[in-house]
Amino acid sequence: MAGSDPTQSEEKLDLKEKIRRLIFHSDNHGEKLFDIVLIFLIVLSVHVVMMESVPAIRARHEAMLYALEWFFTGLFTIEYIIRLYVSLNTLRYMRSFFGVVDLLSILPTYISLFLPGAQYLMLLRALRVLRVFRVLKMAQYIGEANLLIRAMRASSRKIIVFIFSVVTLVTILGSIMYLIEGPEHGFTSIPKSVYWAIVTLTTVGYGDVAPETALGQGVAAFVMIIGYGIIAVPTGIVTAEITLASREARAQVTCSDCGAKSHDLSASYCARCGNRLGVLK
Amino acid sequence: MAGSDPTQSEEKLDLKEKIRRLIFHSDNHGEKLFDIVLIFLIVLSVHVVMMESVPAIRARHEAMLYALEWFFTGLFTIEYIIRLYVSLNTLRYMRSFFGVVDLLSILPTYISLFLPGAQYLMLLRALRVLRVFRVLKMAQYIGEANLLIRAMRASSRKIIVFIFSVVTLVTILGSIMYLIEGPEHGFTSIPKSVYWAIVTLTTVGYGDVAPETALGQGVAAFVMIIGYGIIAVPTGIVTAEITLASREARAQVTCSDCGAKSHDLSASYCARCGNRLGVLK
Amino acid sequence: MAGSDPTQSEEKLDLKEKIRRLIFHSDNHGEKLFDIVLIFLIVLSVHVVMMESVPAIRARHEAMLYALEWFFTGLFTIEYIIRLYVSLNTLRYMRSFFGVVDLLSILPTYISLFLPGAQYLMLLRALRVLRVFRVLKMAQYIGEANLLIRAMRASSRKIIVFIFSVVTLVTILGSIMYLIEGPEHGFTSIPKSVYWAIVTLTTVGYGDVAPETALGQGVAAFVMIIGYGIIAVPTGIVTAEITLASREARAQVTCSDCGAKSHDLSASYCARCGNRLGVLK
Amino acid sequence: MAGSDPTQSEEKLDLKEKIRRLIFHSDNHGEKLFDIVLIFLIVLSVHVVMMESVPAIRARHEAMLYALEWFFTGLFTIEYIIRLYVSLNTLRYMRSFFGVVDLLSILPTYISLFLPGAQYLMLLRALRVLRVFRVLKMAQYIGEANLLIRAMRASSRKIIVFIFSVVTLVTILGSIMYLIEGPEHGFTSIPKSVYWAIVTLTTVGYGDVAPETALGQGVAAFVMIIGYGIIAVPTGIVTAEITLASREARAQVTCSDCGAKSHDLSASYCARCGNRLGVLK
Repeated sequence: MAGSDPTQSEEKLDLKEKIRRLIFHSDNHGEKLFDIVLIFLIVLSVHVVMMESVPAIRARHEAMLYALEWFFTGLFTIEYIIRLYVSLNTLRYMRSFFGVVDLLSILPTYISLFLPGAQYLMLLRALRVLRVFRVLKMAQYIGEANLLIRAMRASSRKIIVFIFSVVTLVTILGSIMYLIEGPEHGFTSIPKSVYWAIVTLTTVGYGDVAPETALGQGVAAFVMIIGYGIIAVPTGIVTAEITLASREARAQVTCSDCGAKSHDLSASYCARCGNRLGVLK
Repeated sequence: MAGSDPTQSEEKLDLKEKIRRLIFHSDNHGEKLFDIVLIFLIVLSVHVVMMESVPAIRARHEAMLYALEWFFTGLFTIEYIIRLYVSLNTLRYMRSFFGVVDLLSILPTYISLFLPGAQYLMLLRALRVLRVFRVLKMAQYIGEANLLIRAMRASSRKIIVFIFSVVTLVTILGSIMYLIEGPEHGFTSIPKSVYWAIVTLTTVGYGDVAPETALGQGVAAFVMIIGYGIIAVPTGIVTAEITLASREARAQVTCSDCGAKSHDLSASYCARCGNRLGVLK
Repeated sequence: MAGSDPTQSEEKLDLKEKIRRLIFHSDNHGEKLFDIVLIFLIVLSVHVVMMESVPAIRARHEAMLYALEWFFTGLFTIEYIIRLYVSLNTLRYMRSFFGVVDLLSILPTYISLFLPGAQYLMLLRALRVLRVFRVLKMAQYIGEANLLIRAMRASSRKIIVFIFSVVTLVTILGSIMYLIEGPEHGFTSIPKSVYWAIVTLTTVGYGDVAPETALGQGVAAFVMIIGYGIIAVPTGIVTAEITLASREARAQVTCSDCGAKSHDLSASYCARCGNRLGVLK
Repeated sequence: MAGSDPTQSEEKLDLKEKIRRLIFHSDNHGEKLFDIVLIFLIVLSVHVVMMESVPAIRARHEAMLYALEWFFTGLFTIEYIIRLYVSLNTLRYMRSFFGVVDLLSILPTYISLFLPGAQYLMLLRALRVLRVFRVLKMAQYIGEANLLIRAMRASSRKIIVFIFSVVTLVTILGSIMYLIEGPEHGFTSIPKSVYWAIVTLTTVGYGDVAPETALGQGVAAFVMIIGYGIIAVPTGIVTAEITLASREARAQVTCSDCGAKSHDLSASYCARCGNRLGVLK
């Protein structure tokens, strides 16, 4: 770098910095517009993948869908290259979650070029569908999810214990139903009976497998009431966590006028100077 | 106005004001009765539209339903004209939400007069059904919805993020199920598979599309448990918001006896004079 | 009363009072046993009514079920007469909710005696089923429901507004689906489409009526996500109400040692004497 | 013990103590590994039982499943004997919940040896399925469930009252539907109608029994909206309980620096010394 022209290098760095700001931040009007355009393109590209999977639409508009597909692949390839270029640590970006998502959203289209034979049809279908993961690219443009994610993370251990209890419960309830109803009423194996127990406990209730004996319907009624009742547990956990998180955020409100901290939870006005306190977002 | 008789003009204004009070306020007994009669008429007119759509009832009571339809249309037309007459700003009322609803509840019947041919059957059916929107006329008579709407609005951003996450989730889960089950088990396209994922995640579970392979049922079980668990998130958000809103309302309770404000959250009696504080509504 | 023997009258009053205590209170061991025996008899009699409705069981055990039926009717008749005898205000008891329930639980059996002909079969079935209302007799023995009922009553206005909004929503959504899907896909009338909208919005999802067109499935997906989200509203209302009720009960805890009232919400020990405060039930 | 070598006895006790520590505690790295290995073996053995119930898998891998079954039975037998040996009170362990579960997880395999004839097929199947209860062995390795269990226990009385109300409700609603729809539309008896009411109220909605008359669908719509609304009650109860439990845990936070107790609910920093308070887990 010592040999090169420092001014040009600085200018180049400046450009890099500008692009980085454009992609990663969204403070001013222009940067926000860039975000919205990209989100719109991602949603559109996901719709193209979806439309392609509908036989009637694919038959009629194959050429247009093919063209659109390459248009989006080209666009996202350019985006990927720019991101590689401007990232401060290229390798770390490539191995990051969104780096992998960005790569996944262009790779399948390129690979499909090298699989021309009919013998790879299954793989081709998988690749086509994989492009739907582009929808994950959107996640990086949403900064609101923080409180939710924090509340979820804070209660994750309790939720895992809850899910573990539910799995234990459906294993036992499913096995009992396998004994009661048996293969002659559609409960052909324990895994299938456990599947039924999950369908029932979570109140989904397809009805593809349903108890037919009186005893089986009695046990099913018990499973339903249990399922109806224990939904309260995860709800209670998450609610308590969100309420706590909201309240903590509130308790640390600082008066914008006099700087007084740690106001009463119910305070709407600063206790020291009477200034209206900012509302909790 | 200067040239006209001021007394008559005042009297006229007075009448206008009286009608306005009758329609828009509901403080005294007579005004409340007017509200109840109107709500009753709206509910009745919506029932007439519904009955008309039942083939067996339409065949037998066509004449009566036709008469009732014109009776309600006439009534609501008179109401609309009066509202136009008494409103302080006619144009603003016409463009307001309830102005449009009021117009929509009479217009279809008049338009249907000019569409006598059998060739407009589809449009006629649409117009007939549109009259059901009369039910929205009721909303202006209910003043209790404020706390609910405020809580919903306060948590709207978080709920949008939540719905966005759900949409992302069902897109990916639906695509995976399309790969696993394929068109031979009813998952004919990605949009249909996403529809299945929504039916399952929201625990609706029609059973019109249901997984048949063991792997598909395993993924379905996973989707159900996820759906069963994440219902906790919107519940937690809204609950935290309502609890906060209730508490804020409480904290600003003013003692009716001595006027002391900002009582402790748990206070049931005024801290200054010992008077029983009003309960939170 | 002046002419009669005061001692005997007093004794009689005493007996009446004793029976009243036995039936209406449940403080000591004997009175609790009486309650439990009655609850057991009620549950048993409801099961007899249920068993009678199962064709296979009625065919085999008709005589026994008939005998049991008269046994329970006799028992509840005696109970009704005693209640009439001991009640301080006979007429008020007869017109009270539980007075009507008590009469309803014996009357059908007696009426069925006077309706021997086959022409009253339908009515007889109704009378037989009516006896199931005996289950309501149990409600008077449960004193725990107070907090729940208070919370429900406190939030009843908000819940009515919520139910009203849901009814408005399903009316409009059902009408739109009637237009989209039409009679050829099972949406034969607006009332049926509204029924479908309720089945879907409440996440019940029978699947007896399900959208078949792509647009219909799209609207259905929207209805499901709405239904999945707004379940949070009644939950939030009731939760906020219960939390508040629990907290108020707590705030009024009186120290059993020194009598100090209105402790801090978080207090586990009395602020004046350090005594352990009773836990909230 | 007096006659034996005290050193050896001490050593033996020491060994017993070491094994006890290994099984019952999980403080250091080695003990945690032991737990994880055992959980893994339990999950594996439950999967073997499940696989055995699938006809296609049993037909192909019968020998291997048989061998695995005896491998796990042997292992759990050794574990059971060790637990008997190291437990301080052998009889109490045998009669404890986990003692019974441990015995149940090995007994069925041994009993099946003595039931060779085809006449015991039903019993054999039951024994095979019983082994699924091994999944309960896992519960003793999870120490996180405490807060959940405490919250559930604290609200157990209210939840029982709630379940009792739901049972009363479905009994009455089911009986009414039996009258309205009757045996000709699938509501063949009151128990079956009550089963339908439970399926509907809990929003499971199989669709195996569904109302067909207009009046029946109206009542069904009412049941659904009721079910949709009252789910809020158990949720509210458990949420209020968990919020209270979390807050109590918080209120008793002791400052690790100065030892000050009973901080304000919203406090994030110690009120006496300004030290950051530990977060609530």
